[in-house]
Amino acid sequence: MRRSTIEWVDGAVEIIDQTALPVRTVVRRLSTVDELVAAIQTLAVRGAPALGVAGAFGVALAARQYRGDALTEAVLRLRTARPTAVNLARGVARAADRLADGPEAVLQEALAVRDEEIASSAAMAARGADLVTSLCGPSPRLLTHCNTGGLAAVVGGTALGVVAELHRRGALGGVVASETRPLLQGARLTAWELDQLGIAYQVAVDSAGPFLMAQGMVDAVILGADRICANGDVVNKVGTYAHALGAQRAGIPFLVVAPESTVDTETPSGADVKIEDRDAEEVLSFNGQRTAPAGAAAVNPAFDITPHDLVTAIVTDRRTISRQS
Amino acid sequence: MRRSTIEWVDGAVEIIDQTALPVRTVVRRLSTVDELVAAIQTLAVRGAPALGVAGAFGVALAARQYRGDALTEAVLRLRTARPTAVNLARGVARAADRLADGPEAVLQEALAVRDEEIASSAAMAARGADLVTSLCGPSPRLLTHCNTGGLAAVVGGTALGVVAELHRRGALGGVVASETRPLLQGARLTAWELDQLGIAYQVAVDSAGPFLMAQGMVDAVILGADRICANGDVVNKVGTYAHALGAQRAGIPFLVVAPESTVDTETPSGADVKIEDRDAEEVLSFNGQRTAPAGAAAVNPAFDITPHDLVTAIVTDRRTISRQS
Repeated sequence: MRRSTIEWVDGAVEIIDQTALPVRTVVRRLSTVDELVAAIQTLAVRGAPALGVAGAFGVALAARQYRGDALTEAVLRLRTARPTAVNLARGVARAADRLADGPEAVLQEALAVRDEEIASSAAMAARGADLVTSLCGPSPRLLTHCNTGGLAAVVGGTALGVVAELHRRGALGGVVASETRPLLQGARLTAWELDQLGIAYQVAVDSAGPFLMAQGMVDAVILGADRICANGDVVNKVGTYAHALGAQRAGIPFLVVAPESTVDTETPSGADVKIEDRDAEEVLSFNGQRTAPAGAAAVNPAFDITPHDLVTAIVTDRRTISRQS
Repeated sequence: MRRSTIEWVDGAVEIIDQTALPVRTVVRRLSTVDELVAAIQTLAVRGAPALGVAGAFGVALAARQYRGDALTEAVLRLRTARPTAVNLARGVARAADRLADGPEAVLQEALAVRDEEIASSAAMAARGADLVTSLCGPSPRLLTHCNTGGLAAVVGGTALGVVAELHRRGALGGVVASETRPLLQGARLTAWELDQLGIAYQVAVDSAGPFLMAQGMVDAVILGADRICANGDVVNKVGTYAHALGAQRAGIPFLVVAPESTVDTETPSGADVKIEDRDAEEVLSFNGQRTAPAGAAAVNPAFDITPHDLVTAIVTDRRTISRQS
């Protein structure tokens, strides 16, 4: 069985470096807060559940590395390493609440965050698979966006965990993985995970998804969330909204799978969320090769907002929230 | 002034090789039907209007190169080099109608097709710019998809010709060019043309477009067509449909600019169009570098179908067809 995406090993954090996949499987050891923050910002570790664990482990590192103002500052750097995902800030806050009790108490809390994410993945997989079968029958063809598998969590994952569970049950008709520009989490990471799981799949460019739905080639869209607002608006990888519009027009379910920790009741709606605008070079280059002319500019929102009326159901580890229709 | 995208020079076809842009500007000389068919299939020459001219020039080459059955077969190869664009087949048919009159008559007809495309670009630019200003006011921010500039035509272009005309009039507020995966015609070709024209622009990944519209950052979508069906359904580069859904939800105009030769009254609706399914490797690689795991599969529709109810207006060189509302 494959190792965890993120783990605490002998006083440091070890991650599978997601920037090296699918070409190489590299385990990186992160011994300092700076190393962990850099790994988060370069997306070597990513995905809402994994970021929650990374944040908690980061505070455990900070508690061993710093004291006083330097510690406070390190916790702030961890919390703000990426602005959109609520899990990161939440994982940091949970572990930071134990700072007064010393490094070991912080670590125990971080390990609890990890264990809860593992249990949460299993609960979502079962609940989500039941829902998909009830909505789409015994052999659904699913489209998923970005990466929401074990690599986005500790093991298992969210939406891709549901896909894997359906496969285990013999109740999966097919998978389309959208490539997820600019960083290709779908083509690189989801494809790699599906390959490891022995599940047949097809990669599609992001903009093909809505057309494949219109052509009757997809029975439901299933993906994750970086934040779920109090009104049900879903903040997730850019491209989620376009796929939701496609699902609505095609009349197929649009399903969001995310741990309860992604639900942010303090954010009233998507309009209240700061969307991370990432480096233009992510859009203008690929693997260091420039595609656009010199001097080109880009707009690069990392996430988008899917209004709640486009979401058929949200599956968490504790409940299924269905759209009022 | 820049040379034409496609030209007849001393008994052969010369094209700007669009696979080399934006890194290098390479003129390729195509002296045989096989060379021209290969250039069409590799998208060294592309875009509905340019393909019409390429098809007509191709028959002029064939008329010099072949006789009898070999000539008939060469014309068929030209006509079917790409299955979706109606202009290619139409350009071929127009030139082929003159085969009985000898190679020189065929060439004269092909040159007439070229001249008509040049005149058509100018007419669309003026008509389209008037329409955009009337719908969006004096400083619209436009989003365009794929490449519809001079590189898709002979000079000028379709939708990007309208953008250029608005710029010349001082009536353009901004341009977002979607990158247009898998072959990046937006990031490579549209960006290059906008740069040459001195127009500021931003590149965006394809799936960001609908979100940028929802955020109020785009006032209208303007793009081309490879075929317009009798009922007004628009067949165009994959991603067009997703952008149309975004425009509808945002309540902004969705405008299609294409020569009258793109209107195909013999195809009742989009459901009757064969959509070219291109090589999976286009999706699984990026700029020649493999991204997905070995053994990955892909689905790669080159075009999609935008139902007529999502299209605010179609601008041709002869008329503006507005949605009945």
